[in-house]
Amino acid sequence: MTRTRFATIRAEGQQLYGVVVEGGVVALSGEFTQWRTLRDVIAAGGLGALAAAAEGRAATHANGSFDWEIPVPDAEKILCVGVNFPDRNAEYKDGSAQPQYMSLFPRFARSFTGHGRPLVRPPENHTLDYEGEVVVVIGKGGRRIAASDAYDHIAGLSLCNEGTIRDWVRHAKFNVTQGKNWDASGAIGPWMVAFDDAAQLDEARIVTRVNGEVRQDDVLARMMFGVREEIAYISTFTTLMPGDMIVTGTPTGAGARFDPPKYLVPGDVVEVEVEGIGTLRNGVVDE
Amino acid sequence: MTRTRFATIRAEGQQLYGVVVEGGVVALSGEFTQWRTLRDVIAAGGLGALAAAAEGRAATHANGSFDWEIPVPDAEKILCVGVNFPDRNAEYKDGSAQPQYMSLFPRFARSFTGHGRPLVRPPENHTLDYEGEVVVVIGKGGRRIAASDAYDHIAGLSLCNEGTIRDWVRHAKFNVTQGKNWDASGAIGPWMVAFDDAAQLDEARIVTRVNGEVRQDDVLARMMFGVREEIAYISTFTTLMPGDMIVTGTPTGAGARFDPPKYLVPGDVVEVEVEGIGTLRNGVVDE
Repeated sequence: MTRTRFATIRAEGQQLYGVVVEGGVVALSGEFTQWRTLRDVIAAGGLGALAAAAEGRAATHANGSFDWEIPVPDAEKILCVGVNFPDRNAEYKDGSAQPQYMSLFPRFARSFTGHGRPLVRPPENHTLDYEGEVVVVIGKGGRRIAASDAYDHIAGLSLCNEGTIRDWVRHAKFNVTQGKNWDASGAIGPWMVAFDDAAQLDEARIVTRVNGEVRQDDVLARMMFGVREEIAYISTFTTLMPGDMIVTGTPTGAGARFDPPKYLVPGDVVEVEVEGIGTLRNGVVDE
Repeated sequence: MTRTRFATIRAEGQQLYGVVVEGGVVALSGEFTQWRTLRDVIAAGGLGALAAAAEGRAATHANGSFDWEIPVPDAEKILCVGVNFPDRNAEYKDGSAQPQYMSLFPRFARSFTGHGRPLVRPPENHTLDYEGEVVVVIGKGGRRIAASDAYDHIAGLSLCNEGTIRDWVRHAKFNVTQGKNWDASGAIGPWMVAFDDAAQLDEARIVTRVNGEVRQDDVLARMMFGVREEIAYISTFTTLMPGDMIVTGTPTGAGARFDPPKYLVPGDVVEVEVEGIGTLRNGVVDE
């Protein structure tokens, strides 16, 4: 079974949304002018209409003729879950038991680029690191969503390279904000796959490769806080809105964990892959 | 000298922007339809045109006939500076010297309400606390802004009650995200005052009162990281955009610092005042 994949692209200076097909994308934003972005489509419950409109059609934009954007370019919020695999918690070597609550930090959309576009290593610091993660895109918003209902609030899934300037994560006494929000230091994409089956998350296996070498390989079922708990906990304090993205956590194996660390350098290619979602691929360039 | 005060209000279900005058607001969004929100006005350099259009006019909306909104309701980002007064750093009693870098955390717009509207204490936790702060609204965006140029990038000033659910700030090993982002737990307003003179910040004194009792009283000149350094440091990693807000830091004297703590309870009234900007006033209600 192939699920519908929704994408946002940029072609000839225009931002368009549509459905991914063999060889490219069927752009549909010109036909659904009541919805400005994929966020509007999600909020209006219009994903089904988009899927139907694309059925049987050939790509309006062939691969190579456009740039991939973040699937939801104007999400109200993007929240990342930190240190969410058991051995990553152990890596901090502070003797702490499994935490009672999850660690959360926001990222601004401009800290992410799209699929196929390079992560940017800034001149100020060269400890650019990868973190492969699954992204949950909220469909139906809500506050105080029960864990048992959480999957009903998911519109789709995407992938994230939650790229980090490692040295800047520990600049401050609290909070990782500045290490996690360098412009174009991470990526989300290539697209959003419709979510309709718990197994898409519960049986997902995530693999991150750098230049073809496997660096991260784990299953989401091992996360200390699963996606149901993430949605329940986050929506306790903030109203989740359609298009909001939760970046669910990265397995062990980021570059910083090697001795010596294996940070990304220009020319590297990072791939984040989950079967049934796709492969997010990004090079690395110096700014 | 009275500087122009720009505001966003809600009246009869509509969000409007305009200029504050004696007794109310001159709504101007109906006359400047090319700009949807005050963020668009700022981005287009339109604040002067708004001020000119309001000159000599009486309020279109009298005080009491509308609700105050956050001055820029759709800022791309809101970044708060934590632990930015020397004695607040000492309060943490961890023996740390003055930090080398500032602590930063984002807040989502929905965690703030407008002037005159109540802060909301959630049923989950009752450690709702106040923090009075000055807000800088970015006018001209930029990346890697030099500290010496930073003031040229400020459109205006506002006030913040950076309301916090104190117990939730320490839920996680890192990051204060969940204690700082409860819906309507803080406030920004009442308006944005145009910024044209360094003294508006350099000589600002901030006072926070709860039910008339002074709890915080300090001068911005004592901040460990001044506004110039905040703009320079933040813009190192992220592009500051017109309408972005920086919440610059709170003096000592929040409720958590008393023994026993003096948390806010329903019926309390909190005022944050800076001469030349105004007074942000909010009650407290239980959700």
